[in-house]
Amino acid sequence: MAEPLNVPTHLTPENADFSKALAFLDGALVPLHEARVPVRDLGLMYADMTYDVVHTWRGGFFRLEDHLDRFLSSCAGLRLDPGLTRDGLRRVLAELVRRSGLADTLVYFACTRGTAVPGTRDPARHVAHRFFATVTPLILRGQPAEMNRGLHAMIARGIPRIAAASVNPAWKNTHWGDFQRATFLAKDAGADIPLLLAPDGALAEAPGFNLVALVDGGLVAPDANVLPGISCRTMFEIAADLGIPARYGRLAPEDLGRASEAFLTATSCGLFPLTRLDGAPIGAGVTGPVTTRLLNTYYDRKNAGWHITEVASIPPPEMA
Amino acid sequence: MAEPLNVPTHLTPENADFSKALAFLDGALVPLHEARVPVRDLGLMYADMTYDVVHTWRGGFFRLEDHLDRFLSSCAGLRLDPGLTRDGLRRVLAELVRRSGLADTLVYFACTRGTAVPGTRDPARHVAHRFFATVTPLILRGQPAEMNRGLHAMIARGIPRIAAASVNPAWKNTHWGDFQRATFLAKDAGADIPLLLAPDGALAEAPGFNLVALVDGGLVAPDANVLPGISCRTMFEIAADLGIPARYGRLAPEDLGRASEAFLTATSCGLFPLTRLDGAPIGAGVTGPVTTRLLNTYYDRKNAGWHITEVASIPPPEMA
Repeated sequence: MAEPLNVPTHLTPENADFSKALAFLDGALVPLHEARVPVRDLGLMYADMTYDVVHTWRGGFFRLEDHLDRFLSSCAGLRLDPGLTRDGLRRVLAELVRRSGLADTLVYFACTRGTAVPGTRDPARHVAHRFFATVTPLILRGQPAEMNRGLHAMIARGIPRIAAASVNPAWKNTHWGDFQRATFLAKDAGADIPLLLAPDGALAEAPGFNLVALVDGGLVAPDANVLPGISCRTMFEIAADLGIPARYGRLAPEDLGRASEAFLTATSCGLFPLTRLDGAPIGAGVTGPVTTRLLNTYYDRKNAGWHITEVASIPPPEMA
Repeated sequence: MAEPLNVPTHLTPENADFSKALAFLDGALVPLHEARVPVRDLGLMYADMTYDVVHTWRGGFFRLEDHLDRFLSSCAGLRLDPGLTRDGLRRVLAELVRRSGLADTLVYFACTRGTAVPGTRDPARHVAHRFFATVTPLILRGQPAEMNRGLHAMIARGIPRIAAASVNPAWKNTHWGDFQRATFLAKDAGADIPLLLAPDGALAEAPGFNLVALVDGGLVAPDANVLPGISCRTMFEIAADLGIPARYGRLAPEDLGRASEAFLTATSCGLFPLTRLDGAPIGAGVTGPVTTRLLNTYYDRKNAGWHITEVASIPPPEMA
């Protein structure tokens, strides 16, 4: 008897109370629906920004320091200054969650190049960058029935992922034109989600997801032209403890075609099983035992406080 | 005696009255500084939007129909619906300019995928797209002294332009991560502006500019991995009338290296001379006679009403 997939059932769109959603913007806390940026913000005009998304689970941040590491690395790489120290960021994000009264949340935080300075396009002349953050109720991508069915993926062969040399994917960015177009084409073709190839033809990413395949008894995640995913790292840590080999490396479409299991990873779901590729089953065409064990262990560990920082343990920020 | 470059002297940042700047957003006209979009607009979150920029000259739009053609083509390609007919767009843009009281303006107009729908990343489920437009005083990129000196360009060899297969450059988009990074690196190196190569090594674009070189007595503009520029088309139309050969084709870095003249084209300046490449002079290292003649003819013709649609000739929109 196969182990059942244990996905929480209460984190649905219907249960999500968006009236509690908040934002921190231009130094103040406001209801989310009031949080707006100028139409001449360079984040909007030229996608000149970075962001990250961390979640809270039962009142604690999951891997907060890892997300702060990545955000600060993205800011440094893109020469963006959020105007807050690492400790200041931690306090602002915690305050947002605390004031929302929500236990299970997604916390989005971003830094843009700020409002356009009239008469110049020189990014170095834009020195008043804009930090903002939002807290919204956690809605699991992948409700239980969807998780059990798994996603049907299509390789978007005509739309390579933006090359890493053009836009560094390790600096988390909003350059999603390839993802959005590939999503439309996948849906047109009856699939749920596209998988994008790197310019060299290896598998790269799905929109907002890292890809992991179980090939020859070991997990493989693409190592090039992808965001270094924190949820992927989480699954690899769990795999190591469970004695399942896991490595980053090249994953060709034919490798995924002969995989016994596969899944996508993201903060909003931990992992999401993939059960079909280009119309054919992946392995048995159902959510597999390794995938199930990883996700169930993920929830067991989060519930036990693994990688959790209690929101209540973080002091309030000093705000005007 | 060389013909002098005739650049208007009054369209400076100092003369620009931004208190007259306006926006049309969510169906209403507002002062520009009040025009804001939600932080969860997908234009900001995922660069899921298109835009265009047309200018007015002495109270008339320059090539309005060409800009509307391109905007509507971009919307169709990206499956974005601005919620206005072509005539409705024309009227809204004209009303913006009329209400501003400005004669020489830049009119930016955009359509985003709209505000994120909680619980989904499926772009097809975002059906309430957002159109907005702004009018600001025209500040010439390239004031007279800058135009006479010309720009010093650097080929950004490590940062290829985002491949057309990933993000179609003909659908005008905000994917500027490569442009912004290349601009920083060019400035670091003491240059004014980067030129980006296509993935195949041919010259493509500069940030917000098309590139044109005078090689072997004829103008050449890159034909691949570039936005089909309307200002470039304008210069080619003028060149044709002046008996100067002009064509779209492959332009390699070595072609630009041996060019006798070169310039960039954009709405905000018509053209901007390039006088140095990677530290070496282009041709004589000064703004050349063909470049000068093209720009002077451009102003002569605009002043005579060429490609101009009087703002006053366009009826007001029907607004709530």
